[in-house]
Amino acid sequence: MDNSKIGHHISEQFNRELEDIRNKVLTMGGLVEQQIELAIEAYTTGNMEMAELVIKQDNQVDTLEMEIDMECTQIIALRQPTAFDLRLLITVIKIIHEIERVGDKAERIAEMAIQLSGSESKLPHHELEHMADLVKDMLHDALDAFARMSVEEVPAITALDENVDREYDNILRQLITRMMEDPRNITRTLDVIWTVRALERIGDHACYICEHLVYMVKGEDVRHLSQSELEKKVGVVK
Amino acid sequence: MDNSKIGHHISEQFNRELEDIRNKVLTMGGLVEQQIELAIEAYTTGNMEMAELVIKQDNQVDTLEMEIDMECTQIIALRQPTAFDLRLLITVIKIIHEIERVGDKAERIAEMAIQLSGSESKLPHHELEHMADLVKDMLHDALDAFARMSVEEVPAITALDENVDREYDNILRQLITRMMEDPRNITRTLDVIWTVRALERIGDHACYICEHLVYMVKGEDVRHLSQSELEKKVGVVK
Repeated sequence: MDNSKIGHHISEQFNRELEDIRNKVLTMGGLVEQQIELAIEAYTTGNMEMAELVIKQDNQVDTLEMEIDMECTQIIALRQPTAFDLRLLITVIKIIHEIERVGDKAERIAEMAIQLSGSESKLPHHELEHMADLVKDMLHDALDAFARMSVEEVPAITALDENVDREYDNILRQLITRMMEDPRNITRTLDVIWTVRALERIGDHACYICEHLVYMVKGEDVRHLSQSELEKKVGVVK
Repeated sequence: MDNSKIGHHISEQFNRELEDIRNKVLTMGGLVEQQIELAIEAYTTGNMEMAELVIKQDNQVDTLEMEIDMECTQIIALRQPTAFDLRLLITVIKIIHEIERVGDKAERIAEMAIQLSGSESKLPHHELEHMADLVKDMLHDALDAFARMSVEEVPAITALDENVDREYDNILRQLITRMMEDPRNITRTLDVIWTVRALERIGDHACYICEHLVYMVKGEDVRHLSQSELEKKVGVVK
């Protein structure tokens, strides 16, 4: 782990505070990654205890967000940081908000797992698991890039969102066909659609985390850029 | 407009900076309110120019978000505010993010209006307009409360979200019935569902703005509270 950017302060106490915040963000991220994993497993296996656990974990995620948020604000007030340190603290506030929204999506998937339990129409498992793996990877890599304070991997992560969108379109098409073939299953199939949509949104949030990270490290706002514009800004040579 | 909280600084320049930021937030909010209005009108009347305008306006909204965000960060770095002023600036960064996401939802509705143009299945107009009115009111009142830096109205605004959710459930039930009756229209009806869902999410974002506002004014984090807990915190006596 590259601590060069965090561990450079004359005040040991300030170093520790920033390090503590970074660790808490990673704890929060890890928790949400676990939520996604459990939610998808609950969905595919019908394990309702797992689904309930995901819903319970959401409180922990919310509490962590509020804690980190408060700590960042307090540090800004007491230490009056500028330049990179200030960007770091403001970016953390934004990133934890994205992580919290990812947690909400995982909770939603768990709720759909409960709603669909015992149902035969909750397929396609295989495609759904594949899509879940994709967005989990995106989120994991985004958090890893944050931990290393490095933007090098960012374009590779955001590029994956196109695959996620493609998977989403594929699954949606299958589900529409299924609804047409068996209209009695429309309500349940809609629940599957909410699940797939929640996954698709997790991919978006992973991209947002990447954008915040670029701002933190490079001081440049790269939100709302296209993939190729982003690659130029971050300095990727293909 | 109550300027007491903003206009109390010894530095005239600082007062002007904060005032300028508040005005920009309100401009951004007004733009997004207009986007919702135009998007719904495009949807109900089939006016495609209007829909295109909403999509174009999204760039303006994004630019405003980035501008305000940068100004807030610069003021924090230069003025090193504490207490209320710091909370104000950090809250503005959060609030403009919610406004930007509302703009995205309006854009989505405009896209659906384009997709559904010429289609007969895009009803029910009446219910949709009613729901749109509800969430527009919520957003408007939330921005108004921000302009006045007052949390008094917050519980009344967030209480409306229950009505929005009820409307959403009603419309969804109608749309499911329609899909069952005429499975050939499933794809188009799904586009209507996305529209209704975007409206429902706008209501959520209005609630988030309210929560951020309570933190700004009272210094208390009221996210993730139930409506009755929120009322207690904000001090509403029924």
